[in-house]
Amino acid sequence: MDKSAVPPHFAEDAHAWHSAILESVADASPRGRGRPEHLYSYANALNGFAATLSAAELRALRHTPGFVSAYPDRRADVAHDTTHSQRFLGLRPDAGLWPAANLGEGIIIGVVDTGVWPESSSFHDDGMPPVPSRWRGACVPGVSFPATTCNRKLIGARYFNRGYVAMNPNDTISMNSTPDDDGHGTHTASTAAGSPVPCASFFGYGRGTARGTAPRAHIAAYKVSWPNGFVTADVLAAMDAAIADGVDVVSISLGFNNEPLYTDPVAIASFAAMERGIVVSASAGNDGVHGLATFHNGIPWVLTVAAGTVDRQMFAGTVTYGDTKQGITTIAGVTWYPANAWVSEAKLVYNDTLSACTSSALLQSLATKNSIIVCRDTGLGAMGHQMKIAAAAGLTAAIFVPQTETDEPLTGEYPLPVIAISPEDAPALLKYITSSSQPTATINFQQTVLSRAPAPVVAFYSSRGPSPSFAGVLKPDILAPGDSILASWPPVAPLAYVGRTALVGDFQVASGTSMACPHASGVAALLRAAHPDWSPAMIKSAMVTTASAVNNLLRPITDAGNGNGMASPLAMGSGHVNPNSALDPGLVFDAGPWDFVALLCAANYTVTQIAAVTRSSTAYSCSSSSSNDVNYPSFIATFGANATSGRMRFSRTATNVGAGAATYQASWSAPSNVAVAVTPLTLEFGGAGEKATFEVEIVLTAPTGGEPAHGAVLWTELIGSHQVRLPYVVV
Amino acid sequence: MDKSAVPPHFAEDAHAWHSAILESVADASPRGRGRPEHLYSYANALNGFAATLSAAELRALRHTPGFVSAYPDRRADVAHDTTHSQRFLGLRPDAGLWPAANLGEGIIIGVVDTGVWPESSSFHDDGMPPVPSRWRGACVPGVSFPATTCNRKLIGARYFNRGYVAMNPNDTISMNSTPDDDGHGTHTASTAAGSPVPCASFFGYGRGTARGTAPRAHIAAYKVSWPNGFVTADVLAAMDAAIADGVDVVSISLGFNNEPLYTDPVAIASFAAMERGIVVSASAGNDGVHGLATFHNGIPWVLTVAAGTVDRQMFAGTVTYGDTKQGITTIAGVTWYPANAWVSEAKLVYNDTLSACTSSALLQSLATKNSIIVCRDTGLGAMGHQMKIAAAAGLTAAIFVPQTETDEPLTGEYPLPVIAISPEDAPALLKYITSSSQPTATINFQQTVLSRAPAPVVAFYSSRGPSPSFAGVLKPDILAPGDSILASWPPVAPLAYVGRTALVGDFQVASGTSMACPHASGVAALLRAAHPDWSPAMIKSAMVTTASAVNNLLRPITDAGNGNGMASPLAMGSGHVNPNSALDPGLVFDAGPWDFVALLCAANYTVTQIAAVTRSSTAYSCSSSSSNDVNYPSFIATFGANATSGRMRFSRTATNVGAGAATYQASWSAPSNVAVAVTPLTLEFGGAGEKATFEVEIVLTAPTGGEPAHGAVLWTELIGSHQVRLPYVVV
Repeated sequence: MDKSAVPPHFAEDAHAWHSAILESVADASPRGRGRPEHLYSYANALNGFAATLSAAELRALRHTPGFVSAYPDRRADVAHDTTHSQRFLGLRPDAGLWPAANLGEGIIIGVVDTGVWPESSSFHDDGMPPVPSRWRGACVPGVSFPATTCNRKLIGARYFNRGYVAMNPNDTISMNSTPDDDGHGTHTASTAAGSPVPCASFFGYGRGTARGTAPRAHIAAYKVSWPNGFVTADVLAAMDAAIADGVDVVSISLGFNNEPLYTDPVAIASFAAMERGIVVSASAGNDGVHGLATFHNGIPWVLTVAAGTVDRQMFAGTVTYGDTKQGITTIAGVTWYPANAWVSEAKLVYNDTLSACTSSALLQSLATKNSIIVCRDTGLGAMGHQMKIAAAAGLTAAIFVPQTETDEPLTGEYPLPVIAISPEDAPALLKYITSSSQPTATINFQQTVLSRAPAPVVAFYSSRGPSPSFAGVLKPDILAPGDSILASWPPVAPLAYVGRTALVGDFQVASGTSMACPHASGVAALLRAAHPDWSPAMIKSAMVTTASAVNNLLRPITDAGNGNGMASPLAMGSGHVNPNSALDPGLVFDAGPWDFVALLCAANYTVTQIAAVTRSSTAYSCSSSSSNDVNYPSFIATFGANATSGRMRFSRTATNVGAGAATYQASWSAPSNVAVAVTPLTLEFGGAGEKATFEVEIVLTAPTGGEPAHGAVLWTELIGSHQVRLPYVVV
Repeated sequence: MDKSAVPPHFAEDAHAWHSAILESVADASPRGRGRPEHLYSYANALNGFAATLSAAELRALRHTPGFVSAYPDRRADVAHDTTHSQRFLGLRPDAGLWPAANLGEGIIIGVVDTGVWPESSSFHDDGMPPVPSRWRGACVPGVSFPATTCNRKLIGARYFNRGYVAMNPNDTISMNSTPDDDGHGTHTASTAAGSPVPCASFFGYGRGTARGTAPRAHIAAYKVSWPNGFVTADVLAAMDAAIADGVDVVSISLGFNNEPLYTDPVAIASFAAMERGIVVSASAGNDGVHGLATFHNGIPWVLTVAAGTVDRQMFAGTVTYGDTKQGITTIAGVTWYPANAWVSEAKLVYNDTLSACTSSALLQSLATKNSIIVCRDTGLGAMGHQMKIAAAAGLTAAIFVPQTETDEPLTGEYPLPVIAISPEDAPALLKYITSSSQPTATINFQQTVLSRAPAPVVAFYSSRGPSPSFAGVLKPDILAPGDSILASWPPVAPLAYVGRTALVGDFQVASGTSMACPHASGVAALLRAAHPDWSPAMIKSAMVTTASAVNNLLRPITDAGNGNGMASPLAMGSGHVNPNSALDPGLVFDAGPWDFVALLCAANYTVTQIAAVTRSSTAYSCSSSSSNDVNYPSFIATFGANATSGRMRFSRTATNVGAGAATYQASWSAPSNVAVAVTPLTLEFGGAGEKATFEVEIVLTAPTGGEPAHGAVLWTELIGSHQVRLPYVVV
């Protein structure tokens, strides 16, 4: 509440004021739950109260004079918190996909990347079941990697660099073996299937138990990426080996830009994987700033993953200022300072001259006291320089006020304790400083802000579809946590600095579709464990049709790459993966090698090109089937940016994977320039396993103006809870 | 192994050498377990191997040319490790006292100290049972302590300072309420009964789950200690309140030096506690450097606790140096540097001039490279100054070589990453530096060395008996972990420094009999839970007679206060408390208020003095009994330092607390100048609860020369496993 709005007769008794407010908003209707319960009144950390309220009461409260903000209470689970992204995905040990899949027990995930750091705690095998007898992989020895390195978690290790060496003959490879001296592969592998590691954190931030998405799955590492990158021949060899070794899922967080399907090693190897029933999950790329079609791995028979944020602000701190007369205010801010600095009731300093933070000599006049300098943002890259100056002046800490709000670290090094506050909070802070005789503040580091909303938000850098290598299927497929992901990292180089001293750790926070991909790979592994009979297409379909298109405010997911407007399926696919719902999707849309060959045929791929993809000139042919439509759990209608109208018809065959008979009803959402028709409007399945076909017609009725239009077709089960959502895009 | 001892034909194949060694020591006898298993050969971290060996094979190995050292393999339990002291006490969740006592559930421990910091995670009440209905305590509100502060863990809070205020009228008490702004009370209370807190550490050192000795017991805080100390009136009032409130155990880690029993508030209040069946556990004092009789709380009806070390070296780091030609060596050292500094293959520097570490200007010539300076110990207090100089010179790190080995931090601040190595390891390191063209080293911080031996060792500072207030009973009673104990601490002041920046944390490492006392209090609480019918004397007796007199090398416990010679009972009582054995002691020696009054009578206390202790002039009298011998589980025979001979007879009555009938046989140990006789030599108990009496005669046969003589009387159960050990001292 706004403390200044307190009515005079309550001036000395905020508690009574709060009680009166609650009385006034109490819902006396039969629907009401009874009186709101007044739990706490706060006068120090914030001005306000905690109460139990119905939705109607909350709405009424928002209109009460003096109301500032309200947010739901949140339980902080310190002891049992997973690496937060798994929690954000809804994965929990007592219900849903985790127990149904036995945490991925028995499944093998092949990670194609920069190798792994085997000493990482994420690869301990305590409690892991034995290596599956069907496993044909190997633990190939090499530099810093004896054959005994593998265990029941890390069950295989291979490395491939003949192609790289041929292309970079003058390059020295110091770690010519599977160990990861880069970090990327360790991070992605531990995100996919790391064993539980308690007390994980990035220098005190994001503390909790780190574990992978499928924490009881086995990992096989395939190292293809070397100091100067990776080449097609090695990636193809690695994926080939993974397939031959017998992995269940391939997780690949790298890709080749602008590579046609018939030369893209990921496309070619994934086709073979599909033939063997192996799921391939790949990252979409981080070129989102370059607009649409900035994609890689947009391969019809691959699960392509975009990156979104989670609801935890990991790198948080608080600034508490004020006094008992004016009131004490605590604001949250962003800090990566890698230690629990003690900044307690230090003198706050702000003035126009000093706060440019450009002169150590000037600032040094403050250094005799325990001082915090408030620095203003003088432009891109200013913060790092200003912090060095403040540190050189011997100040205790600094508060940075950026021009625009951001969660991103604005500097790589923290020569002194510093926190960046929100520009919105700056005026009140500065007012306090200028109006107080002895303004002081306390800064707390290593805080975590939970329940940040909205989340997820599509990351600005996440590459957008359509896929340059095949525009005929909607890409990406889904959104998964990719932003600020804490996972294991090899301790081979400094990760942070405190003052002059470099620090190292076993965990790193990284962002990218590289991080989103292993989350999806882990979910695919869990689904494979729960449904051993499902094809890769069915696993993808289950993830796509049950994804969530709304965020934690129950509003459509937004996209940081389009000014925080509503996210298009070209950014997020069908939405944020929802593992517990994917366990039980109701209907799935299956497709196999022949279906995808037919797609290539209809796209006029030559016989040679198709043979390059299928790796056989005899196994498939275009004579028997050719269709520019494949049984995909989404639709993309390409009419062209300048099109004023268009019509496209799609056919889909749904398989009932529910427990028994079911009936589904169609509905859809459409923007004003799109008309959708679904035939029939009802699907009836007599029992589990039955199939039914329907058609969807998408009609463009007015120009898109270059802005892709999107909506979704929804199949809702009558007498049941299954919902099947198939997004569409008109480009 | 000594790498230089390798036979020439094995020079290139250490593994084969190791295998050959194992072959040669293999025990082929029928007793042997078969061939030793050769698990690993190491060539980098150390030169040697890991193997499974029988004791005989190990003995043979020790005689093999090239043998350097051997130590048992140790499992590092990262995920489930308790605060190490509880583990060192043998407490475990699956067997012994912890499950038998249900972790202390239902028991209430009153902690008389500097208050508690209620926000500390150790006082969370997740999983705690409700407040016992018998509880008569209160949660007294005050500054920063609303009445709602208490919970199911911290069930009571009171503060007492009327006496203090009267004695210090000009003192300002900022925290005039129960919250602990000192730290001591929070540390002791959480050691006694703290709830589990995962990921506890002192800036990365000693990481594990912190929990109290009786983690499911309730805590009631009685604050008596204020900025300038504590006074008798407040301590008496606090203990009175604790007794009236209904605690089961009082834990008091403070005492009054040189205070007669009849004016010592701890003695007086403890007598009342005993009358109500409440156990009082108190610290012995930290004046051990002043020799014998430096004691406080040496009260016959109190459990008085001395301090010992544990087997974990918490503040450890490693230095790795060398090259593949000469071999890589890793040595352990002591460091408190509060962050995981990255010091990797940095240039090692040592020369006579630079390594005095007295000139920043000189050292600065090194600062252009990633350098580690080796500083030699130039005398007391040198290290702090040298580190400031090295930091000012901009060096990466420093290695300090103390003149004598120590675990103690030699400086309070670490302006740069620094590690103190053992003087024994210095010659090899210096040789490497002077003989290499480019000597480098890697330093790892935040390490933990487990299985340090010997442990426990009596801490040099632990006060020694006899008790100045009553020399007629042997004091202290037992030894408990008191050295380098990690427990909760209020975050109200910096705890460490990294560079210039002060750091704060929620845990502190502290040493003293203050830390040992709450361990014993927790054990007493557990025993009270397991044996609700036992008197305080029986609980003390069980702890005393089952204590361990040997260390983790199975040798007699040594005493750092006597040059690491064998510890006397005047330093450690009967030895290191062994909770799981105390659960089932076989026999106990009970004594009650009347027995202790009789003791005072025989010691010629006046009627007034006895009434001061018993707080009644009518409840007890000396006419009915007077005995200078009380049924104590130990013996002290005072003949005088110049005595050439002496004889003292003691009578003891043992109660059988075993399951049924039992027979015990007497034996004893004695030094050459003492003769012991026990009558009878056999005790027979027809069933549980029966008593039997015996006499012990201790005869001094030759002068002690001022050095107390000691030994023990041992009752061993025939056909059973109980052992009852009663130490004696001749002074």
